[in-house]
Amino acid sequence: MPVGTVASVKGVSQDILEELGVQILLGNTYHLYLRPGVAQVRQLGGLHRFMAWPRAILTDSGGFQVFSLNDLRKVTEEGVTFRSHLDGSTHFFTPESAMEAQIGLGADIIMAFDECTEHPASPQRARESMELTLRWAARSKKYFEQHKTEVPWATERTPGPAQTQALFGIVQGGMDAALRKESAERTIEIGFPGYAIGGLSVGEPRPVTREVVEATLQHLPADKPRYLMGVGTPEEIVEYASLGVDMMDCVLPTRAARHGLLFTSEGRISIKQVRYASDPGPLDPKCGCRVCRRYSRAYLRHLYAANEVLAQVLNTVHNLSFYLDTMRAVRHSIALGNKTQFLAGGQSRAKS
Amino acid sequence: MPVGTVASVKGVSQDILEELGVQILLGNTYHLYLRPGVAQVRQLGGLHRFMAWPRAILTDSGGFQVFSLNDLRKVTEEGVTFRSHLDGSTHFFTPESAMEAQIGLGADIIMAFDECTEHPASPQRARESMELTLRWAARSKKYFEQHKTEVPWATERTPGPAQTQALFGIVQGGMDAALRKESAERTIEIGFPGYAIGGLSVGEPRPVTREVVEATLQHLPADKPRYLMGVGTPEEIVEYASLGVDMMDCVLPTRAARHGLLFTSEGRISIKQVRYASDPGPLDPKCGCRVCRRYSRAYLRHLYAANEVLAQVLNTVHNLSFYLDTMRAVRHSIALGNKTQFLAGGQSRAKS
Repeated sequence: MPVGTVASVKGVSQDILEELGVQILLGNTYHLYLRPGVAQVRQLGGLHRFMAWPRAILTDSGGFQVFSLNDLRKVTEEGVTFRSHLDGSTHFFTPESAMEAQIGLGADIIMAFDECTEHPASPQRARESMELTLRWAARSKKYFEQHKTEVPWATERTPGPAQTQALFGIVQGGMDAALRKESAERTIEIGFPGYAIGGLSVGEPRPVTREVVEATLQHLPADKPRYLMGVGTPEEIVEYASLGVDMMDCVLPTRAARHGLLFTSEGRISIKQVRYASDPGPLDPKCGCRVCRRYSRAYLRHLYAANEVLAQVLNTVHNLSFYLDTMRAVRHSIALGNKTQFLAGGQSRAKS
Repeated sequence: MPVGTVASVKGVSQDILEELGVQILLGNTYHLYLRPGVAQVRQLGGLHRFMAWPRAILTDSGGFQVFSLNDLRKVTEEGVTFRSHLDGSTHFFTPESAMEAQIGLGADIIMAFDECTEHPASPQRARESMELTLRWAARSKKYFEQHKTEVPWATERTPGPAQTQALFGIVQGGMDAALRKESAERTIEIGFPGYAIGGLSVGEPRPVTREVVEATLQHLPADKPRYLMGVGTPEEIVEYASLGVDMMDCVLPTRAARHGLLFTSEGRISIKQVRYASDPGPLDPKCGCRVCRRYSRAYLRHLYAANEVLAQVLNTVHNLSFYLDTMRAVRHSIALGNKTQFLAGGQSRAKS
């Protein structure tokens, strides 16, 4: 899921995102709550209509941004007090107000309000934080069930199953496998149509991330979406998908693009390097995106060196294309695997 | 002609420019000479190949940029010494080196090296500057004739008439009608396939601009392209086209877009205004561009207020669309006028 923090994937228009095959975008509740504000988006019919994006949208709970952008946040049982990174104004998020915000924004998938446990955290701190997230998950669900029909498009869409949003739970528990297991089981007890693994990519070594993902995944139902938040590199998303993760989001393809770091079938390219100034070849000879079809490395290097806005636009389009191609390959190989399995099953049935 | 200063129309990809119907782009010799450098562009096959733009390109002579970006420039009979706005390094442009640069860049239309007379200028200063431009025009033509086959694509393109570039002359003469007439006549004596009116939009009142344009145009051959440099607003380009101007370039649509100033059929809109924050309507209800078809004023206002790069991208696409629509309407009305004239002529012939 490409990240469109404030209802825009930085530099890329929605037409291009559609062409790239983006199925679902992520919006950040924290940012959208601050600007343009939930009331504004609600009044304009919700995020889909506001940003002219008919495909799926997921909003995060705001918990991670409060955690990562606010040194001055104050957490109590009731919720989190934090200061806006825009103007320093004070705000208070509770599970209830985070649900209210996400219902008002009207994404298709919304996330329970959680506390993202910092790393490192003592065993006691990790448990207390996990327990808090569990209580907040119950409160999130309760508020959601009472108010879910207040989504801006509740009565607008054509008759069908999706007249309300889907609220996902978030598993926390720090880097401790036992805590993660307990968090998963007790989140499942509360009951959600999908589950996310939160609290990773917070500074821990990558092997630890993988261990925690594996330790957590096995306790989450395979017949419901399993969403790993905030990862990762192209190699990582393939790896996590192979472990059973269904959904991932990451700012890496878009943020790296803005810094001239491009993912290609031949490895990573830092397009700012002078070696590309005379390179007439495409960025990635194996990529069919509109950037690789048309422009040379020399031109992309020139745009970056000249600080042209088109550099960010084209670099982002390519990196998203590379990520989406990667996920298409993953899905293709899953489909092939399933088919093989199915055929094998069919043959064995035919034999019996 | 949209302006693509360093081989990019800021924020807009070449695909979109094609879709908008852009027939010709302007590149700035001064900027391209400094970055990425003429040798670089030449080695990569010229500007068309470098920026992946198969349609027409015009490069200016560099004279105007040296004039407008360099307080420390020093003009002699031989040429102009100036400092780079990028790194302060010293450079020297002569008519010959400006031709060499433009031949190396390989645009379809290139401009004679001129001195853009400042405003206000005394009669004596305006005459001396005009005389210098005339001598430089002769030197530009001489160098061009001797070196025109050195254009990067001289031997690449398929057989046909356009194996070399077209060098246009530039009329100067300050704000004095008599000097302009003399400059036009003597530039025509040197002989070029097209003529530009330079030295306007340099701070003079708009009515003066119009007077000078009218005073100059009547002395330029109507059967050759007449190019008015550096104008203007949508109203002005209609007005100048009606006077007989064939080509114009201006940074206004692209630069204004970056500042949130948008041209519409209902007048100018400053999209940053809070009044648009809740406006669900299209930017311009009469515009069919991909921005007006898809996005609301509220979304465009949000993108601008949030300082999102997509604001620049979408605003620029719309403003270019508005300008190109304006010029399409101008061409349509010229065609209609000509047809009416032709039909009238035909009828009178039929009667006789």
